[in-house]
Amino acid sequence: MAYDLWYWPSIQGRGEFVRLALEAAEIPYVDRARDSGEEGLMADMEARSGRVPFAPPYLDTGGRVIAQVANILMYLGERHDLAPSGMADRLWLNQLQLTIADLVAEVHNVHHPVAMMDYYDDQKPEAARAAKQFREERLPKFLGHFEDAVEANPGDWLIDHRWTYCDTSLFQIVEGLRYMFPRRMKTLEPDYPNLTRIRDQVAEIPAVRAYLNSDRRIAFNTDGIFRHYPELDSE
Amino acid sequence: MAYDLWYWPSIQGRGEFVRLALEAAEIPYVDRARDSGEEGLMADMEARSGRVPFAPPYLDTGGRVIAQVANILMYLGERHDLAPSGMADRLWLNQLQLTIADLVAEVHNVHHPVAMMDYYDDQKPEAARAAKQFREERLPKFLGHFEDAVEANPGDWLIDHRWTYCDTSLFQIVEGLRYMFPRRMKTLEPDYPNLTRIRDQVAEIPAVRAYLNSDRRIAFNTDGIFRHYPELDSE
Repeated sequence: MAYDLWYWPSIQGRGEFVRLALEAAEIPYVDRARDSGEEGLMADMEARSGRVPFAPPYLDTGGRVIAQVANILMYLGERHDLAPSGMADRLWLNQLQLTIADLVAEVHNVHHPVAMMDYYDDQKPEAARAAKQFREERLPKFLGHFEDAVEANPGDWLIDHRWTYCDTSLFQIVEGLRYMFPRRMKTLEPDYPNLTRIRDQVAEIPAVRAYLNSDRRIAFNTDGIFRHYPELDSE
Repeated sequence: MAYDLWYWPSIQGRGEFVRLALEAAEIPYVDRARDSGEEGLMADMEARSGRVPFAPPYLDTGGRVIAQVANILMYLGERHDLAPSGMADRLWLNQLQLTIADLVAEVHNVHHPVAMMDYYDDQKPEAARAAKQFREERLPKFLGHFEDAVEANPGDWLIDHRWTYCDTSLFQIVEGLRYMFPRRMKTLEPDYPNLTRIRDQVAEIPAVRAYLNSDRRIAFNTDGIFRHYPELDSE
């Protein structure tokens, strides 16, 4: 049976980390709100009771509903062998995925620093200030951490010699940052060759390549989490 | 053997969620930086290599180092039976803990909206705006979610009839919000009686009561994540 994935239908956003893992592993799923629209997603959330999600994305397995990206990926990792099963490796991957989640939250905060529920246009001066510190201090710190994480493994991937859900997530981080900060990333990326290598290897997974060329992959846009506003970028 | 816990020694911060679970379960640990100071913590971080933490808190088990609050708590939950072992319950608790982590990040963002590495005094007007939306929109949404989560279980706690690391985390959320937003919480709390009940039950766990009365519990202050700035509070 195919999973039901529920997420906003017009953006990559946080849902993309789940989509990529499902696609790379060729796990059948239906991206439900692509058909039903935002209204369908909101109606589905309201109809649920008991152990409900706080926000999309969430995965309906038929028997239960799982929310929070790192939690969904951990489930898929265990259930579909997308991650090593030993405790040390499992915890390390989850730790990295949670650090990716922290980065994603900081990226969102760049264009929505003072009012998450308002428009970017209502907080442009504040966003400019947030972007400067993010570009200059936070971004190199995160990228350096992920570079070190890849380097810490003698194999080709983050762990051993096979990709995990955390490798596909690193791909998405690099793609998103290149879209949002093309000038800054051009300056920084040469310092992180192993991270770029993981990005390239993920792009070459046949199922990922097919996905990226399909209309299932939503293009980056300025409604998502990674947003290209040229005024927030700089070398 | 006692665990080594590493976290900033003068604040509750994110480390407190780990301290509370360890204390409630009477698991031996040494809060290392309470002796060595911030310098000791920074020296320890710099001396590590391989699978290193991005930031404190982290737990050194003797054989490995585990970072990210929800990840540490999941480990303690499995290793010391602080959480049910069935997959559905494990995922549900982790999901709630990650939603608590999201709330904590938004709380920090209230007083540091545009420049995480600068002082609050350098971003007071922006913080006032961030605080208003947080108090009026985000806070009731989070509290309502946790209230519903408690109500979804027929037992006394979040799951079944015993406390888990996620119950001690909800205690900390209520305590922190009462300190940071006393006026707002006075208005809101009557709407969330089950959440308040969990807070009270955790405070009555004998080991927690002993901890709260000890000098191991650092007082809330305006260096931590929950900060009381009266100008950011309102009914």
